[in-house]
Amino acid sequence: MADVQLFKFDGLFAESTPEPRPRSTKPNKYEFGIAYGVPETIPLDGLREAISKGLKEDGRGLAKYPHPQGYPPLRELIAQRLLATRNVRVSPDDILLGDGSGQTIHLICEALFDPGDVVLTESFTFNGTLNSMRRFRADTRGVPCDDDGMIPEALEQSVKDSIAQGKKPKFIYVVPTFQNPLGWEMTLGRRQDVLRIAQQYDLPIFEDDCYVDLRFEGESVTSIHSLDDTGRVLYTASFSKNIAPGIRIGYVTAPPVVMERLKVIRGGWVNEFAAMAVYQYSKDNLDDHIEELTDVLRGKRDAMLAALGESFGSAATWTVPSGGMYIWVTMPEGTDASAAHSVALDAGVAYQPGHIFAPDGVSGKNCFRLTFGYNSLEEIHDGIGLLAEVFTREGVFAS
Amino acid sequence: MADVQLFKFDGLFAESTPEPRPRSTKPNKYEFGIAYGVPETIPLDGLREAISKGLKEDGRGLAKYPHPQGYPPLRELIAQRLLATRNVRVSPDDILLGDGSGQTIHLICEALFDPGDVVLTESFTFNGTLNSMRRFRADTRGVPCDDDGMIPEALEQSVKDSIAQGKKPKFIYVVPTFQNPLGWEMTLGRRQDVLRIAQQYDLPIFEDDCYVDLRFEGESVTSIHSLDDTGRVLYTASFSKNIAPGIRIGYVTAPPVVMERLKVIRGGWVNEFAAMAVYQYSKDNLDDHIEELTDVLRGKRDAMLAALGESFGSAATWTVPSGGMYIWVTMPEGTDASAAHSVALDAGVAYQPGHIFAPDGVSGKNCFRLTFGYNSLEEIHDGIGLLAEVFTREGVFAS
Repeated sequence: MADVQLFKFDGLFAESTPEPRPRSTKPNKYEFGIAYGVPETIPLDGLREAISKGLKEDGRGLAKYPHPQGYPPLRELIAQRLLATRNVRVSPDDILLGDGSGQTIHLICEALFDPGDVVLTESFTFNGTLNSMRRFRADTRGVPCDDDGMIPEALEQSVKDSIAQGKKPKFIYVVPTFQNPLGWEMTLGRRQDVLRIAQQYDLPIFEDDCYVDLRFEGESVTSIHSLDDTGRVLYTASFSKNIAPGIRIGYVTAPPVVMERLKVIRGGWVNEFAAMAVYQYSKDNLDDHIEELTDVLRGKRDAMLAALGESFGSAATWTVPSGGMYIWVTMPEGTDASAAHSVALDAGVAYQPGHIFAPDGVSGKNCFRLTFGYNSLEEIHDGIGLLAEVFTREGVFAS
Repeated sequence: MADVQLFKFDGLFAESTPEPRPRSTKPNKYEFGIAYGVPETIPLDGLREAISKGLKEDGRGLAKYPHPQGYPPLRELIAQRLLATRNVRVSPDDILLGDGSGQTIHLICEALFDPGDVVLTESFTFNGTLNSMRRFRADTRGVPCDDDGMIPEALEQSVKDSIAQGKKPKFIYVVPTFQNPLGWEMTLGRRQDVLRIAQQYDLPIFEDDCYVDLRFEGESVTSIHSLDDTGRVLYTASFSKNIAPGIRIGYVTAPPVVMERLKVIRGGWVNEFAAMAVYQYSKDNLDDHIEELTDVLRGKRDAMLAALGESFGSAATWTVPSGGMYIWVTMPEGTDASAAHSVALDAGVAYQPGHIFAPDGVSGKNCFRLTFGYNSLEEIHDGIGLLAEVFTREGVFAS
């Protein structure tokens, strides 16, 4: 019998389709890499009761396709909550739900970027956003930051450089609250500076506020959106970090002209079943849940800081985040934090090498990001110890 | 006080971003336009029990980001079900979940189409697919059909014409089972013919089998995928029609080289919470549910056929579908079924003018599509009567 010749799809892909990115789905014992949620706080009973209530109130509505911007009661609740917690004044019509904020970020990138368009971000930023920006072949440029956030003089210089090259930036992307991966919170003064520069050079800002609910201490700093009265700030956040990543509900605010584009480029509707659960759960329980969640997360942060002190000592410095999920570790210049990555994974410890958060793809080799939500206090202690052992064994520390 | 100048996003959009499409979200009393599900059959108790079970078994897993191809147990179940019901042999690794089949279709289009690429479809086809194809600026070409499906000679001629123009078609898109909008089921012989032509000219086929579970009578016809041993058939289906549109879970099968591309272009992960519910529900209840659902749908089809006979009489002809959700109504050539569309909507009756299903965007003006799942038997009767009245009043019928 002749061998059957299998059809070859290889040559058929669109030019714009990116090459595959290898992505492991292997679970790691010590998961300090991916920013998973806190398993023991997933509100199983709360979600069960919430969807039960949602099905009772609105279940027949599942026979319809969802509203193109997503479940209206949830958008109504988000608008109320944004006003109450972030001073963001938007109507439910200005909100679009997505599969987590990852999808809303992807949509904004898809709507706005032609190949080569410049976008300014913090010196290191969320790699998922970078991947979406690269997907649409944007020219991603990092702006130097200190512990207060983007440095205004550096931002203004980057804007000027870009304009001088005939490439006015499409927008400034910032994660001002408990920054990913850098861990700091942008001060009010810096938020005002970034906005002033955006206004002066007539640029939009895309504010990613995914971690805002995860505050361990200190007073809330208002959103950049709330400081602006010119409609130039897009704002995204999500229920991934305050309920669960698997619930896949995020949102973005945008003026009508942008909203219409987002709706037309999106190839589906956001999950109505999950949106019903998130709505009913959040209405009654979210504030209490956040209090419990941040208590647990604060303890895990402290455990990781203690473990770093114990195992990394003077071999590195690290941030002490007052909220969020990330600790950014800096080792001496010349060190390569990615060198031991695969060995650490084989040993069961996952972390993220710094350069994956770099807009230029190469900076930050002496840095790495840790996240502390997923493991138990004991695992955090043991895993950081194991990581230091691997680093020692692999010669990552400068001798 | 000076007026604040609002930021203008208008000039910033990517060149490839399509213009907004107006889309009404107004509910219509007689919804014969959008293919909603059957509200009274939405399994509210079943879904509540299913997610309760899912949360108990796997709820802590919501702390993680879902697998890039979607919830593994559901993909396992889909693979088993595809083999049992469609003779489709694929592994769970060959399956990707999406937000309904709409998203999987969109992803396939995004992965494969460069502007101007030719795609062959049935003479009239699902407008959502056409919108995705147009989003990526494909050259959509309809192949003439009769009540048995695509006409092989016409398909072969279309392939030849396209190749002669230096534009070998990217794929052949077919909805062989209870076709949308035409209502017929492609015969086994025609499925073999389409596959033979695809093999002869070395083209892939994209088989959209969304309605296969909704059979009212007659024997199952095997899938095109099952007839092929060369790996050229991509296959999509969904839980929108057999559970609920709002559950937003569809799937596509594809070989690894395509799968890798689909994963990398998708900007999010599919909803794990909904996937858990679909998995638990389907495992225990789907077959029984489908039996109940098709009983109800069959009755609604009969009611609509009776109402058409009563109200449209000899002014039109229409299909008698043995499954699915659609009746295709043909009026005499020269009639314009879109002429009364907005008046009918104002009167509360929604239907879809034929040309929105036309690959050329203009054919089929004398035709329209009705769907019969959403309304009660009495409403179907009254709504079709009202539609005939509007058509008479607006002079749509040839005098």
